[in-house]
Amino acid sequence: MTPEEFRREAHRLVDWIADYRAGIEERPVMAQIEPGDIKKLLPKSAPERPESFDAIFADIERVVAPGLSHFQHPSFYGYFPANADLAAVLGDFLGSGLGVIGLTWQSSPALTEIEEVTCDWLRQLSGLSDRWKGVIQDTASTSTLVALISAREKSSNYALARGGLQSGEPALTVYVSAQAHSSVDKAATLAGFGMANLRHIETDAEFGMRPELLRAAIEKDRAAGLKPCAIVATVGTTATTAVDPLQPIGKIAKEFGLWLHVDAAMAGSVMILPECRWMFDGIEMADSLVTNPHKWLAASFDCSMYLVQNPEHLIRVMSTNPSYLQSSVDGRVANLRDWGIPLGRRFRALKLWFLLRGNGAEAIRARLRRDMVNARWLADEARRTPHWKVLAPIHLQTACLRHEPPGLSGAALDQHTQAWAEAVNRSGEAYVTPATLDGRWMVRVSIGSLTTERDHVADLWRLMQRLAADL
Amino acid sequence: MTPEEFRREAHRLVDWIADYRAGIEERPVMAQIEPGDIKKLLPKSAPERPESFDAIFADIERVVAPGLSHFQHPSFYGYFPANADLAAVLGDFLGSGLGVIGLTWQSSPALTEIEEVTCDWLRQLSGLSDRWKGVIQDTASTSTLVALISAREKSSNYALARGGLQSGEPALTVYVSAQAHSSVDKAATLAGFGMANLRHIETDAEFGMRPELLRAAIEKDRAAGLKPCAIVATVGTTATTAVDPLQPIGKIAKEFGLWLHVDAAMAGSVMILPECRWMFDGIEMADSLVTNPHKWLAASFDCSMYLVQNPEHLIRVMSTNPSYLQSSVDGRVANLRDWGIPLGRRFRALKLWFLLRGNGAEAIRARLRRDMVNARWLADEARRTPHWKVLAPIHLQTACLRHEPPGLSGAALDQHTQAWAEAVNRSGEAYVTPATLDGRWMVRVSIGSLTTERDHVADLWRLMQRLAADL
Repeated sequence: MTPEEFRREAHRLVDWIADYRAGIEERPVMAQIEPGDIKKLLPKSAPERPESFDAIFADIERVVAPGLSHFQHPSFYGYFPANADLAAVLGDFLGSGLGVIGLTWQSSPALTEIEEVTCDWLRQLSGLSDRWKGVIQDTASTSTLVALISAREKSSNYALARGGLQSGEPALTVYVSAQAHSSVDKAATLAGFGMANLRHIETDAEFGMRPELLRAAIEKDRAAGLKPCAIVATVGTTATTAVDPLQPIGKIAKEFGLWLHVDAAMAGSVMILPECRWMFDGIEMADSLVTNPHKWLAASFDCSMYLVQNPEHLIRVMSTNPSYLQSSVDGRVANLRDWGIPLGRRFRALKLWFLLRGNGAEAIRARLRRDMVNARWLADEARRTPHWKVLAPIHLQTACLRHEPPGLSGAALDQHTQAWAEAVNRSGEAYVTPATLDGRWMVRVSIGSLTTERDHVADLWRLMQRLAADL
Repeated sequence: MTPEEFRREAHRLVDWIADYRAGIEERPVMAQIEPGDIKKLLPKSAPERPESFDAIFADIERVVAPGLSHFQHPSFYGYFPANADLAAVLGDFLGSGLGVIGLTWQSSPALTEIEEVTCDWLRQLSGLSDRWKGVIQDTASTSTLVALISAREKSSNYALARGGLQSGEPALTVYVSAQAHSSVDKAATLAGFGMANLRHIETDAEFGMRPELLRAAIEKDRAAGLKPCAIVATVGTTATTAVDPLQPIGKIAKEFGLWLHVDAAMAGSVMILPECRWMFDGIEMADSLVTNPHKWLAASFDCSMYLVQNPEHLIRVMSTNPSYLQSSVDGRVANLRDWGIPLGRRFRALKLWFLLRGNGAEAIRARLRRDMVNARWLADEARRTPHWKVLAPIHLQTACLRHEPPGLSGAALDQHTQAWAEAVNRSGEAYVTPATLDGRWMVRVSIGSLTTERDHVADLWRLMQRLAADL
């Protein structure tokens, strides 16, 4: 495609995207289609000859849009806020248009240096000491995998250069809360630890990890001849935004010489709010931290920030240095390929840079506060309404709710919960995520889309009450 | 940012990108700056108040552009063709603007189903049997890591569900060519195998893996009580585009029950050319294959296609199934989070879809053929010119060259090679990548940018001769 063809078609696409965002409330939030419906609309094979962009763009409305659950809709309360602020979208667009790749510093110095600077901007806004250095990864799943591999190599004194995990040494063990995200289990198994060497520590009434049980588990493993290696603590769990207490956990990590990784994928955004820093009390004792600016902060997926206090260790674990990647400036620059798994890297810093500059920190803080007020409002409404229960503290922007009509319990209550959640989603008027807590189904209302105002939350509350009562 | 603000600013950005691509030849190919130059131009902290897009866009020319090595420049011969066709850029832009995330099928069905369909389109164009199923990963580094973890779990009968690699079983071993990409070593160490369990098999005169040495290494390890696990074969090595012979390697893999992963990150693009399929003779014996449409094919970074013959195995290794990701359609749909490491996924299929539709397969084939003809032309010129050597067969679009003036050898020759390569890059007129081969430096000329025509290659050839002679 020539630049002039691109100019013409891209202007059309800009208008489509602007119209899409402006009119998004007219669309059902959740895709109202069945498995296979999209595939049926597509040819079985690629075209031999070029198609016109009239045809291609027509398929955005014909094929793509009906098959979307609209994450940017103000009535999207699913999973977590997955905001793509349009300033960040511009940054991402610029990155795609430039088409440069960060293989080394030399391969595009601005890609590396703007990433270093914007990660440091966000570190400062987050109240973290300047011992932390950040780098952008794709997702928290990957960041946590990198953290556990780093922990493994620290505990084994770089066994990767020798026999790896196959050296016949005492098994390394990993400790996580029973409320930790599924990506922690996945990272531990992918890194080779094995599920038998992963301990799920029970939580307290507010779903935070119990430090005394953590200590007991570590001591028991040591007594059994195993080698405790890493703790993954979560600030803002997926189910309820619970907070593992970092102060006591950090002290245990130091006492026993374990790596401490903090998963704040969702909640890390509120480090920019001084009134929320209590959740991170003890963070300076951690070795690594992941927070996803592509969630509530709105940097547009994918933009997961992974921070470490000791980049030299990370580089030693991740580095490769083949001749075709060497340059005369090595040693004086950061080669971010050595800070993660992929060699090639997108220019992802642009979206974070555009987000922070286009909005300013003040406006982002105000938006997060708005969402937390809305979550508390919803919880207050539910608490004062008969047969509705709020199941967990409202630390952030997520309310965990259940409608418990008289006489319903056990499996029948679960069925009721899943039925009204499904009814909400099928209505097209809002999107919520059911999940289990203490073995029972409940509904997470995750507030925080960019355009979600109080009126939207009030609409949702009326909708939930009506659909739950109708069953 | 509101949709109307976005509309205004995005139109300006479209024009900037179109102008950038149209005028890219006016810019020096390699960034002409020193470490730290970009950082110096940036404020130390994020702004509290929003900045105007006049200021932000002004920084594209002031800060960003001087810090780029322009991968889309027609005189870019570095690393590998890293093409971002503008049709693919439009697809990527649409994905960013939609801001949806593939967590599950339900979270945006079109994201999953268009990915399944476009990967299958490319599979068909590539002449692969319909036993192969493809999924988009970020890079070949990640795809190869996924492959080696899959191999590990097959050999160990899913030890990840038990003691992982820490079970005290015989060590699993991995076999790669001595010419394999550095990402293979990295993947093996990250997956926990350890460098001591990785065998680098020597290559023949054309830099392909020697099957008889592979067999000998496997037999030796078995005799020593180790458990051979996986072979990584490369079609189109990074240094010289050498081809490991898949027929004999595949037979050895079958005979000994090893996983065979094929790294065709760069060369996989030519599977769409019938006359190049000889390089892939035996591919159906492989278990996994990676090819990067974001390279020569031009799908815009990041778009690495990972193909497997047994997706059930991949899913068993990678799957997680927490309550908050379950839906009523599970079992009837693909949840691509279980096909790789990250949970969240961008709508990357759009760029592949737009690329194939906007260009058509015929035009892409013609472009690849043009580039191979240009590489052979350059090699022919070098061969007939005194003191120039072509160091490897021209299988694809890469020519490995050395200027060997009379009397220069050893370290002095290396110094000469690096000096003229650096002179080419510093000139701003072209970008090449020096690398080592058989312990000596040479220069890779990797032809295949979208806009590189014969005249550009002829200009490069004159430039190299002049700068090498001037030293």
